[in-house]
Amino acid sequence: MTNSPVKVTSKEQIKQILDEHDTFIFDCDGVIWLGSHVIPGAIETLKLLRSLNKQVIFVTNNSTKSRKTYTQKFAQFGYDATKEEVFGSAYAAATYLDKFVQLPKDSKVWVYGESGIVEELEELGYECLGGTDERLNEKFSASTTPFLPLDPKVGAVVAGLDTGMNYHRSAIALQYLLNPDVHFIATNIDSTFPQKGMILPGAGSCIESVAYASGRTPTACGKPSQNMLDAIVSDKGLDRKRCIMVGDRLNTDMKFGKDGGLSTLLVLTGIETEKGAFESGVPDYIADSLGVISELYE
Amino acid sequence: MTNSPVKVTSKEQIKQILDEHDTFIFDCDGVIWLGSHVIPGAIETLKLLRSLNKQVIFVTNNSTKSRKTYTQKFAQFGYDATKEEVFGSAYAAATYLDKFVQLPKDSKVWVYGESGIVEELEELGYECLGGTDERLNEKFSASTTPFLPLDPKVGAVVAGLDTGMNYHRSAIALQYLLNPDVHFIATNIDSTFPQKGMILPGAGSCIESVAYASGRTPTACGKPSQNMLDAIVSDKGLDRKRCIMVGDRLNTDMKFGKDGGLSTLLVLTGIETEKGAFESGVPDYIADSLGVISELYE
Repeated sequence: MTNSPVKVTSKEQIKQILDEHDTFIFDCDGVIWLGSHVIPGAIETLKLLRSLNKQVIFVTNNSTKSRKTYTQKFAQFGYDATKEEVFGSAYAAATYLDKFVQLPKDSKVWVYGESGIVEELEELGYECLGGTDERLNEKFSASTTPFLPLDPKVGAVVAGLDTGMNYHRSAIALQYLLNPDVHFIATNIDSTFPQKGMILPGAGSCIESVAYASGRTPTACGKPSQNMLDAIVSDKGLDRKRCIMVGDRLNTDMKFGKDGGLSTLLVLTGIETEKGAFESGVPDYIADSLGVISELYE
Repeated sequence: MTNSPVKVTSKEQIKQILDEHDTFIFDCDGVIWLGSHVIPGAIETLKLLRSLNKQVIFVTNNSTKSRKTYTQKFAQFGYDATKEEVFGSAYAAATYLDKFVQLPKDSKVWVYGESGIVEELEELGYECLGGTDERLNEKFSASTTPFLPLDPKVGAVVAGLDTGMNYHRSAIALQYLLNPDVHFIATNIDSTFPQKGMILPGAGSCIESVAYASGRTPTACGKPSQNMLDAIVSDKGLDRKRCIMVGDRLNTDMKFGKDGGLSTLLVLTGIETEKGAFESGVPDYIADSLGVISELYE
């Protein structure tokens, strides 16, 4: 189904969007901030939504930070987001393991990723191995690694972006994945992520190394997988018809919202162009920036 | 086309194989040695072939060692292989870059791999960057890495097994691969390799990380790619009808030989079973080990 996107330029349009939706789900990077710089007017729009008793939810594929660490980033920009408002891919992966896989709590989890994943898993009661353990920074040797023999209590490998990725981490994760009874879950499978004008290897790039070696495909939890949206809808008891997804990417954020039956608003402060957005026929609405909403409303 | 493999058990069969072939192309691991242990009778068979003026060629997908380093391994087992008898996937990749891509010699090559690749490229006159450079062992930071900005003279990325794989190496290789004019060549794309009873991540597992991030597929040079066999046939001026490929794996060695129009002999000292070999219908001949040839001949 193709939309004819509406460019948001008037107070009337804003009022209609506000009337029709109770819950605003946001991608963060490219929408609220760009790296370490806040997007002008974004915080004002968030505050406006809160003053109108709208529910606000932040969704991010960044698995290196826990929800708690995310709220600290919001605080820097003068917005007091609560942990309950943040859904990161690390949290989505941990929730998936708990609610859908129903991995027993006396199982352990091997983490190929950073502290965000470990924190979210531990909060749900899982003991983690691997992750940022400094002994994994040593060169791999089968005869000296402290991670062999394998721990038979490990029931899952959860993998995400890991700037500490190396052969040692891949070799041990592979040993666990060679056992088909060990679940394989990815926070997200983004091939790249933008940082300071560069395109860097994303979570999917780290995960693909062990996926290829093991011949297995992980269950992906981040955007645009509906596992993430299902977890949010279930957790918050949302009515999808009254939700709108706000993001800066057609192939993740907008697809995520549209596939999940939400309204969609694309902002042009990220990687898409207005021309590309109109031609895609994907979003319901297009705005120059998130700040436009509070500006036009007042 | 399916073969009915012949199990080699008599002197007459050996004589027929020797009569019909001038060139014996060998996989090494699982055929001549298993890790650091020589397979009984293998060296005697190599010496027999040499005494009968047969040409002997060793083909390996191991890209971490150069041909020269390989001859040293043969020397340990009491066989004086020459560098010209060894075709490694690092050499195949370097030759491919030189002969087929015809990359100018004043271009540089970014190496995601170990010293074997660097040595083979340098021998053909290419300056290499990356590889085992110790500065790549540091944690990646876009602002401190000495490998940015990119070197505009780099015309190709050659990737192979790299037990030093890490985010720094992936990030820089990706920056080069984002330029579609930079060639992308893999020594081989084996997903795993066996070592001391373990299955470890192979070259393909390291390479897949940057392939996925860049959205590009490398040209693979090792077995079973015919790029490797074409390079050998061209280099040695071989008559394919008078060549036999000897190996221990159906899906690489035997496929490699059969696809290239060679006869094929599977030895059972590696990973295949006799039952599986017969049922596959792939090899022309099956022998319990390479040693069988010299034993039966004498």
